[in-house]
Amino acid sequence: MKILIIGGNGTIGKKVADHLRTDHEVITAGRTNGDVRVDISQSDSIKSMFEKVKMVDAILCIAGEAKWADFNDLSEEDFYIGLRSKLMGQVNVVRIGRSYLQPSGSITLSTGILADDPVVKTTSAAMVNGGIHSFVQAVSLEIENGTRVNAVSLGVVEDAYEKYRDYFPGHNPVPTNKVINAYIRSIFGKGNGEIIRIYE
Amino acid sequence: MKILIIGGNGTIGKKVADHLRTDHEVITAGRTNGDVRVDISQSDSIKSMFEKVKMVDAILCIAGEAKWADFNDLSEEDFYIGLRSKLMGQVNVVRIGRSYLQPSGSITLSTGILADDPVVKTTSAAMVNGGIHSFVQAVSLEIENGTRVNAVSLGVVEDAYEKYRDYFPGHNPVPTNKVINAYIRSIFGKGNGEIIRIYE
Repeated sequence: MKILIIGGNGTIGKKVADHLRTDHEVITAGRTNGDVRVDISQSDSIKSMFEKVKMVDAILCIAGEAKWADFNDLSEEDFYIGLRSKLMGQVNVVRIGRSYLQPSGSITLSTGILADDPVVKTTSAAMVNGGIHSFVQAVSLEIENGTRVNAVSLGVVEDAYEKYRDYFPGHNPVPTNKVINAYIRSIFGKGNGEIIRIYE
Repeated sequence: MKILIIGGNGTIGKKVADHLRTDHEVITAGRTNGDVRVDISQSDSIKSMFEKVKMVDAILCIAGEAKWADFNDLSEEDFYIGLRSKLMGQVNVVRIGRSYLQPSGSITLSTGILADDPVVKTTSAAMVNGGIHSFVQAVSLEIENGTRVNAVSLGVVEDAYEKYRDYFPGHNPVPTNKVINAYIRSIFGKGNGEIIRIYE
């Protein structure tokens, strides 16, 4: 299987890429590294990436940013950072990427526990994650060619736990093998429109 | 109590306004009618509305649009209609409106069943509703001055059932008295960060 991983050199993406590479052809894309460069906040950049990568069997998007700050400090423009990148960036990966997918291929987006169970400083980040959850359910009703679209929604992952633990009091770190399994389930299972929640 | 209803002359807003007017001072705001004019997709317009209305005890936003169309037909720009209006419009009602609320006041946003249970043509509309659900949960953790923020998420309302029934096969219409009660619960209850789901 030929699998494109956008964000395939990030904290989570690298673990998933390393695992999948054992049995599959993995192409990584990222803003500053990877086999191909892409900035998902720009739809032209997404198009250009797919023109280079050509047809694939599965697309994983483990990328996209949103600004974390106190609600009192978030400007309207700050909210648009997340809307352009993590929200519309991922929507555009589906809009554009579906034309570069083999029949019965899959697209897996990435969200997180904030959508369901936010913490302080995440009014923007929670919002974009929640938007993606509903988008995935809606697009699965319409997408053609046997394409499946799912989202993996993770809690605080083990590898980032020390960095983020103070923001997530009492949350339990998600072990790396569960993270990898969530993406495997989306790619190799038959689910469509699923939010694969792995919160501990 | 002095209650501002943005969208207070719409299908749902009018019913809620008429009910609340019996015992309260109700001010309606809308794009083309109401006591004050507002276009919630423009934050300057929201500011100008509050400068006219001054301090209130409760804000209801029953306004905001998103484009309904097949996923194949929705352009990137089409998605931004919903992001600027129903999503960021409502976020901006909270960002700006909180400064015009008396202590322990409430802000009630409006979403809908699509967030949880989308239908065809609603990739954009479902997405913005889902984003608001997560935003409301997140902002309730941080908002100050005793302010409460909730969302009322309705199924297809009785008064719009004939118009929308073909889009919602098998959905049950929501009676008007339940619609009014959902907003009453948000204004006069003590809930904060609640998604008040009334789906039948």
